[in-house]
Amino acid sequence: MTGVLRPDAPAAGDAAAWIHRLGEARARLAGVAHRTPVVTSRTLDADTGAQVFLKCENLQRMGAFKFRGAWNAIACLTPAARHRGVVAYSSGNHAQAVALAAREQGAPCVIVMPSTAPAVKLEATRGYGAELAFHDQASEGREEMAERLARERRLSLIPPFDHPDVIAGQGSAAAELFEDAGPLDLLLVPVGGGGLISGSVLAARAQCPSCRVIGVEPEAGDDGVRSFRSGTLVHIEAPNTIADGARTPSLGRLTFAIVRAYVSDMTTVPDAALLDSMRWAAERLKLVMEPTGVLGLAALRTGKVEAHGLRVGVLISGGNVDLASLSPRN
Amino acid sequence: MTGVLRPDAPAAGDAAAWIHRLGEARARLAGVAHRTPVVTSRTLDADTGAQVFLKCENLQRMGAFKFRGAWNAIACLTPAARHRGVVAYSSGNHAQAVALAAREQGAPCVIVMPSTAPAVKLEATRGYGAELAFHDQASEGREEMAERLARERRLSLIPPFDHPDVIAGQGSAAAELFEDAGPLDLLLVPVGGGGLISGSVLAARAQCPSCRVIGVEPEAGDDGVRSFRSGTLVHIEAPNTIADGARTPSLGRLTFAIVRAYVSDMTTVPDAALLDSMRWAAERLKLVMEPTGVLGLAALRTGKVEAHGLRVGVLISGGNVDLASLSPRN
Repeated sequence: MTGVLRPDAPAAGDAAAWIHRLGEARARLAGVAHRTPVVTSRTLDADTGAQVFLKCENLQRMGAFKFRGAWNAIACLTPAARHRGVVAYSSGNHAQAVALAAREQGAPCVIVMPSTAPAVKLEATRGYGAELAFHDQASEGREEMAERLARERRLSLIPPFDHPDVIAGQGSAAAELFEDAGPLDLLLVPVGGGGLISGSVLAARAQCPSCRVIGVEPEAGDDGVRSFRSGTLVHIEAPNTIADGARTPSLGRLTFAIVRAYVSDMTTVPDAALLDSMRWAAERLKLVMEPTGVLGLAALRTGKVEAHGLRVGVLISGGNVDLASLSPRN
Repeated sequence: MTGVLRPDAPAAGDAAAWIHRLGEARARLAGVAHRTPVVTSRTLDADTGAQVFLKCENLQRMGAFKFRGAWNAIACLTPAARHRGVVAYSSGNHAQAVALAAREQGAPCVIVMPSTAPAVKLEATRGYGAELAFHDQASEGREEMAERLARERRLSLIPPFDHPDVIAGQGSAAAELFEDAGPLDLLLVPVGGGGLISGSVLAARAQCPSCRVIGVEPEAGDDGVRSFRSGTLVHIEAPNTIADGARTPSLGRLTFAIVRAYVSDMTTVPDAALLDSMRWAAERLKLVMEPTGVLGLAALRTGKVEAHGLRVGVLISGGNVDLASLSPRN
């Protein structure tokens, strides 16, 4: 027993087993995660010729869907493992998600962060009661350091995406969307490490099998598109994009298998389209969305995905962004 | 017949007649105005010790509650009067509200605006299909010019607040809040000309008579507080505040009578508290709110209104704001 979560994942193709996991995750999250609203806009419908349903995970607790997977993974630990505590490596939404979910489930929590992370992110994570461990980039990788801490302190490592309990938790957002919006022809999902799209496509499989699910990446971080097209896992080191949630170098082993098995297509949008959609959402919808959060919205608004006449779901993954970037003067 | 809406208002004290008007307005607005969400925040509850329900009229069509009153007033016109058209004077949310509601009800629309209004506001109003009429501040007042146009062109003047159909329409927001949040101990409402608080306090009268309704103004525009305390209508010319929706020089004749009859108290908050609450809402709630929109929220967050242990409703009146003002760097 290393204290690290054992993957214990169903095979990617075993849809029934995944759907069962998804149902269990939803039960664990009921009354804990917000059932975030599905927002519609007459202007957006008129502009796109589609009927669009925005699932607003920017309004989720700690500001992103990541809370769902983190909560579910921690809830799946044995009571003893939860009591010993958890560790995660992230400087973004996963850090805050694990910190918050751990605190509320009474689990000690260590977050491994680069010492170069912005002070505001450090403070936010500390604010949720987590212990911070800074990693020195020269000696060992962030992931390796988290694994070492897990071994040394008998903590359970909560991975950011490549884990069945994380994937099942993330899928609960799309599951709610299908319930609230009804049948959809198309679902657009931001792609970083692939946890959200994996959970989403499994939810579609369960609730609306005819819905095409399309993943959207930033142009500079198109490893997922290239992996999807080539059939082999492509890595891009440190993609240069404002979509910080999609700077992951590649999909995971498990998420790639699920994407290959079920996702209909993958596409990209440029950073300029992300900024434009963020500002449009703030101006017109009065909603703050982060760059990664609007990947699907930008693909729709730029016409990168053809949606005319369709009922289209768009997952807005988060809203944690420096407000200065919304200003048209910057 | 001048074409101007006849006030035909119940006496302020005739609550039953007002509640009947409110019910009619709600029926007219069903399926037309958004039923805006009621947002809750664990952080806000923890910070205030209250259970807080934010009625998000920043998510209303055209971005403010004003759509409700404008729609209801235009819907109350005779078909012939609607066919001739409407006129309104405003450089703010009322202009866009009347323009949008008129277009959707097939009524020609003229908006009287100062020639000094920001281009973005002119464009937004034109975007809803309204004809703009610029008034020359030297020769006649804006209101007088609108009244002249109403006479000359046989248009119906849609006043910004001091009219029973406008008041009844605005009250539909609080009516929804009481339905969605359940009984409240306290309701905080922004006050400019008093249309929103008049409608809100009448809705409280109908649905939750024990709820105390408190109006909130910016410190520099405290004409309502002074009117409420003194019992005589106080005017302040051009209050210097960022809360542009509360720059009205005084309450109306009708709204003042309703405020005196039913409102429990009035208070003020400084502009700095408005900016702080706007940024907090964007950071934590991911919602864009305008300065006037957060008057009630700021009164709550600064402790200006004691709310510990109470169930508190807060009307967020609108979200039309220059996004640059949300940036902490400004």
